[in-house]
Amino acid sequence: MKIILSKEIGFCFGVKNSVSIATKVLKENKKSVYMLGPIIHNPQVMENFKKEGVRIVDRVEEIPEKSTVITRAHGVSYSILHQALEKNLSIVDTTCPYVKKVQKIAEYLNKNNYFVVIFGDKMHPEIVSLLDIINNNALVVDKVTEIKKIKYQKKIGFISQTTKNIYNFEKLSSKLLDKTEELRIFNTICKATVERQKSVIKLARQVDIIVVIGGRKSANTSRLVEICRQQGVKTYHIETKDQMKYKWFHPEDNVGITSGASTPDWVINEVINKLKEWYN
Amino acid sequence: MKIILSKEIGFCFGVKNSVSIATKVLKENKKSVYMLGPIIHNPQVMENFKKEGVRIVDRVEEIPEKSTVITRAHGVSYSILHQALEKNLSIVDTTCPYVKKVQKIAEYLNKNNYFVVIFGDKMHPEIVSLLDIINNNALVVDKVTEIKKIKYQKKIGFISQTTKNIYNFEKLSSKLLDKTEELRIFNTICKATVERQKSVIKLARQVDIIVVIGGRKSANTSRLVEICRQQGVKTYHIETKDQMKYKWFHPEDNVGITSGASTPDWVINEVINKLKEWYN
Repeated sequence: MKIILSKEIGFCFGVKNSVSIATKVLKENKKSVYMLGPIIHNPQVMENFKKEGVRIVDRVEEIPEKSTVITRAHGVSYSILHQALEKNLSIVDTTCPYVKKVQKIAEYLNKNNYFVVIFGDKMHPEIVSLLDIINNNALVVDKVTEIKKIKYQKKIGFISQTTKNIYNFEKLSSKLLDKTEELRIFNTICKATVERQKSVIKLARQVDIIVVIGGRKSANTSRLVEICRQQGVKTYHIETKDQMKYKWFHPEDNVGITSGASTPDWVINEVINKLKEWYN
Repeated sequence: MKIILSKEIGFCFGVKNSVSIATKVLKENKKSVYMLGPIIHNPQVMENFKKEGVRIVDRVEEIPEKSTVITRAHGVSYSILHQALEKNLSIVDTTCPYVKKVQKIAEYLNKNNYFVVIFGDKMHPEIVSLLDIINNNALVVDKVTEIKKIKYQKKIGFISQTTKNIYNFEKLSSKLLDKTEELRIFNTICKATVERQKSVIKLARQVDIIVVIGGRKSANTSRLVEICRQQGVKTYHIETKDQMKYKWFHPEDNVGITSGASTPDWVINEVINKLKEWYN
């Protein structure tokens, strides 16, 4: 068996940033540190934070006054920040800088009377906070059929969730042209995400099977799985080594490994070591 | 034989506008009326103007002082207008309003530091005058391969010659997204052109053969021919009834007829009458 790693693997810049800020806060103040939802979409990393004493809650109401609250890499809405401030919480915002940029662009388009269309997953926290920031003044789409229903608009501004598939973004963009006189597109898909997607396409050409390691709720991980399958390669999505099955592989296989942007190196290494144990 | 006309046929708004302005000028002043190139791309219409006494020239230098000069529907560059003014010519500008709009948008994008990309035919008079207006500060492209060569730009403004194929414009748009952070597209393809292209696609589904009537140099006519052929229908491009051949048809054929935006009704009617003579 030959194991080939994708050129882009492990934590991305935004996740590194978020995790390192949270780790620093924890070192300084082990008591009463809360997270408003998982700061990144990786259960193993979140489990470690819990062991360190962090409590993960869903709503500001659950956090006692004067505690420290760490907000997630996917962004936080103004209304939640406001609630937290009212409660005298000490706020540590770990929003990914690329996500912040999308928020600024969406606000700009909104103020300048563009009909804002967002390519994204309606339920993803990045989109939920983004919509809150622009008072729900946008349409979130995921498919060409949803674009076909849009009425003719004078000006359309089109942006994307940072972790979406660039090829689908391009496809939807071209369909939007039919709906407006002016289409202003900001390519807000994070470059690291694009590079990771391009790397996995190259990887798919070299291997018989691909293992994608990452959280079940991680949007960028799901996208990698989708892209691998589009390439016609047998693809498995696992969170940890324990979900991997011996019978998936053959000793002669070339096996490709990639990971989502929130998968830590140690989880990836465990998968590689297990494969080596089995087949070398 | 069944003859089916395309829903959109004959002069478009811009051509009607240009021809009616020129006709009015001719009525008022038969002497010393010049045209700077053919005001529309239809040889039969231009032949009629010549019979009425109009002289068609290529350059301002050929026009005597104090004459009247009619500029074409495709637009006229500022430098030519300037030359004409210096020579005390009386200028009648028949630029199509939709073409004027493209010129304004190109100037706006240029001033706002967009890298301007134009989907167009480098030699077409609309593009030649447009480029002159923005001091050649733009890249004219016609194919995906030309887009692939573009270096990464902070902001790209993308516009189109008014008579290009909307489907190709969409295709090129999506390729440009890879080249920039912000892509601002103005859909400057004239709506009448788009409607004509859509109509011909519908027509192609109903007929065995399509006859496209229009000038050899007419960009929008060439586009209709291209679109018909893409639909897999046998297609002939003629300027007048005399270029049509009896052997092209079969008595049982359903024959579709369409025309470019600068083809006058009488030329179309002659074609229809000839077909009826042959096959009814």
